[in-house]
Formats: sequence, C-alpha cells, structure tokens
Amino acid sequence: MISQHRLRRRVNFYETDLAGIVHFSCFFRYMEEAEHALWREAGLTIARAGEETGFPRLAVTCDFHAFLHFEDEFEVWVRVARITRRTLHYTFVITRGETKIATGSTTVACVSKRPGEPMKAIELPPDVVARFAVASDRET
Amino acid sequence: MISQHRLRRRVNFYETDLAGIVHFSCFFRYMEEAEHALWREAGLTIARAGEETGFPRLAVTCDFHAFLHFEDEFEVWVRVARITRRTLHYTFVITRGETKIATGSTTVACVSKRPGEPMKAIELPPDVVARFAVASDRET
Amino acid sequence: MISQHRLRRRVNFYETDLAGIVHFSCFFRYMEEAEHALWREAGLTIARAGEETGFPRLAVTCDFHAFLHFEDEFEVWVRVARITRRTLHYTFVITRGETKIATGSTTVACVSKRPGEPMKAIELPPDVVARFAVASDRET
Amino acid sequence: MISQHRLRRRVNFYETDLAGIVHFSCFFRYMEEAEHALWREAGLTIARAGEETGFPRLAVTCDFHAFLHFEDEFEVWVRVARITRRTLHYTFVITRGETKIATGSTTVACVSKRPGEPMKAIELPPDVVARFAVASDRET
Repeated sequence: MISQHRLRRRVNFYETDLAGIVHFSCFFRYMEEAEHALWREAGLTIARAGEETGFPRLAVTCDFHAFLHFEDEFEVWVRVARITRRTLHYTFVITRGETKIATGSTTVACVSKRPGEPMKAIELPPDVVARFAVASDRET
Repeated sequence: MISQHRLRRRVNFYETDLAGIVHFSCFFRYMEEAEHALWREAGLTIARAGEETGFPRLAVTCDFHAFLHFEDEFEVWVRVARITRRTLHYTFVITRGETKIATGSTTVACVSKRPGEPMKAIELPPDVVARFAVASDRET
Repeated sequence: MISQHRLRRRVNFYETDLAGIVHFSCFFRYMEEAEHALWREAGLTIARAGEETGFPRLAVTCDFHAFLHFEDEFEVWVRVARITRRTLHYTFVITRGETKIATGSTTVACVSKRPGEPMKAIELPPDVVARFAVASDRET
Repeated sequence: MISQHRLRRRVNFYETDLAGIVHFSCFFRYMEEAEHALWREAGLTIARAGEETGFPRLAVTCDFHAFLHFEDEFEVWVRVARITRRTLHYTFVITRGETKIATGSTTVACVSKRPGEPMKAIELPPDVVARFAVASDRET
C-alpha cells in the first residue's frame, strides 16, 4: 500500500509569467503530476482508456511561501491524508532544497461516465482503495 | 470605487482535458482574468511595463460544484472581500446560467521588484487602494 | 457559406512568459479560438458531445513578426484557404492595430473515433463541407 | 560542442484535450523543453536572470503523424540544423518507441532587451555560438 510519493521536477520556460516566476496556476499542474505518479507507483492509472470511471476534483487549495524561477529544480511531495467511501484527500508540499515553496491540498471524488449519461458520483472502486493507505505523521 | 466585476467567457477547446471537461487548473486562469478585468474597470493595470511593483498570490482556493464543457458560456464574478495594508482578498463565483459551477478565493500581496534585488513584500500602493472598496453583501 | 472570421482578443497575464511577451505556443491557441469561432459562425461546432468525428491537426506553422504584451488588444483573422475531400486548410493573420504580429497556417484532417477502435482518417462530412467556401483573395 | 539532445518525457493529464490526445499546442512546449535541455547540456541557459539578451522565435512548424495519449512515454530529439550570424535553426523528431509522432522546426533570433528600450535584433553572442555545432546527417 502506498501513502506518499516524491516527484522531482525542473521549471519549464513556458511555466513562467511576465513577473519572472512560475505562474501560480502551474502549481496545481505540479500537484496533479505528483498525484498521478503516486497512482503509477501504486500500480494504477487515473485514466485508463475506455474506462467509465473518472476522478474529478471537488476542492483544491494552495498557499505560496516563496517563488519558483526558470530552471529551478524542485520537489513535490504528495501524501494521502484521508480516504472516505467517496473521496480521496491529498496534501502537498513543494520544496526547492531547504526552501518551502508551497503547500496545498486536493479532494478528489469518483464519478461514473457512461456515454450519453451525465457523470454521477459513485463510491471509490475497491481496487483503488486497496492500494492506498493514509500517511502517518511519522512519515513526513 | 470598484468592488466587483462580472466577466463573460466561453470555454476554449484547449482548456478541456481527456475527461471532456475544463481542466481544474484553468479555473484559476478564469479567476485571474476576472481580477484583471476588475483592475481595468478601476482604471488600473496589474502589470505596468517597467514597473517595479508586482502582485503575487499568497493563497488560492477553489471548490468545484459542476462541470464546464467545450463552448459553454459562463460568468466569473469577482468581488473585493477584504483589503488590508498589505493584502487584497477576492472571492469568486463561476456560473453557467443558473448553475453554480465553482467558488473560489484569492489573497494577493504586493512586492517590490528592483533589478538585482530579491522581491520584497511592501504595502499596497495608495493609488491602488484608493480605487477599490470592499463589496457589501447586498451587492451579491 | 462562410470563408473567414475575425476574432478580437486581449492578452491574458497567464499567456506571458518571463521575457515579458506572449509565449509563442499561445499563438496556436489563439488560432484555434478563431477557427472554432469560424465554425460557430457557420452554425457548426468542431466537437459535438458524444460525436464520433474529430478534426485533428496534420500540420501547423507560425511566423512571428512582432511581440504581443500583457493586455494588448489584437485580432486573429482566419480564412479558409483550401478544401479537399479529406482536409481543411486555414491561413491566419494576427494583428494589433496596424502592426502585423504573426501569420500562420493549419491543415486539419477528419477522423472517426469509435470506442474501442483506433482513430481512422475519413472524408470530411458533407454537412461540414457545405458550410465553408474558400476565401477569395479579394476578401482580404 | 553540442549538436543534438534527446529528451525523455511522459504525457501529463493536463496536456490532453477532450479528444483524448495531447493538444497540438503542447508539442511546441515539448520542443522548447528539448531545446532548453540542449542548452543546459552545452553549459548554457537560454534565460539568465537579469540578462539583457533574449531568444524569441521567428518561425516554427510542426507536422503530426500519430497521436500521443495520457501517460505515454516519448522522446524529443532536437538537432542544430543551421547557425547564422543572427539565427539558430533546430529540427525536432518526436517518437514513442518505433512510432514517429511528430516532426518540427524552430528558427530562433537573438534580441537585446534593455529596460525602457524596445527589443532589438542583435547577433548571436559568441559564447553561445561557440558551444553549438550543426548536426551532421550521420548523427541521426
């Protein structure tokens, strides 16, 4: 069972804005990358071709503590913070060396997508739940 | 004095993802568009060329209530929720017709950017503060 | 029958990069926006929900003549340059006032997407072809 | 002297669109990533903080041969195709295993950016030119 993952990444040019720093919206893309890498480490994929299950976001937050610049190397730590029957909760810490850059959280639901029908919230699939464990505080 | 703004927008193809809906990170771009339109309505620009003042984000949140799809027409309401000496707080509501799509918030700081020096948090410029008023609840 | 469309647009903050100008990849997003507005003007949509026909790009080009900056207002002119049984060819001119910013071209194919099958190139649907006419040089 | 570089990459969720494939505009971001990795391998950076030299694009092209999907692993090969006093020309090949996904080209100019002055085309800096060699056909 997997409860956390560390993604290493470098800032791309197209992720910067005219202020010379990474645009804040890109932090959510970094968090998503780390989440999906966590799923791969758990032997899963969040979007299997032709599959009728999706995992849309219910709520996201990000607090910004320092800036990231072009070509900075940084890390995104994702941890499974809570699992309920219908939701997954992650927390994120983005760091560059010893510097805390940002902290964030994401709550994900599970939906069924059948062609011609509206998406409908369902319980998390058992084979997904079975792969994840809530991270203990000690693991930090 | 300006305290709110309504932006009308249509979903672009490149804002959708493989789930067939707008990628959640784009909601922060929509909120930013509305914020900057609010500034223009107040006779300001958030990024004057050559200017040494910037307005980075301290914290952002978004809660998602319904999906947006390609070519959907929607509205982004931004309201000035609070002004302190060093921060601006906005709240956002995104709607498509009568459907509430998302709600969000953004806290913005003010920094001085002099070439060769690190960015430094400063007080909001008086000419910026003078243009904005906190939205009363009645205006909703 | 529709052969051209003019899109008016303003540069968003998140479209700029650390050089202080619009990132070049965004020009292709601007061209796509103009193309899809052309389709809407023709009474069509390039992506009807649940539809099994898609219009992927075969080739794109862009030549850059001048820079776009934050909050610049600009226009994207799209013209239907050629129609064959299996492809649509567009040309684009992006201008800011009298200044030519960029010129581009796009060749689009048509594919059939049935669940569980690979995408397959097909002829353009007759109801699509019927709505577009090649722009004459006089219209420029 | 460096004349080519191979970047390995995986498709991110936020790079897909509602057609279930990588949005075509992202291919230019992939090419840019490979170009900047080439510069790093040459001991250079394309955007040194506070530097007054920039490298905007003059022209770009991309031909699409096959689709990329979520989580596909692929490679971007960048080669220095030509160097003139004022321009760098690259060619790109994007592959997934044995499958050719896309081919592209980019022409880059060099500009001087002094605060308060418009950008001005200048010759490529000698220390940049000294690091790159045109790729021979044999290297392919």
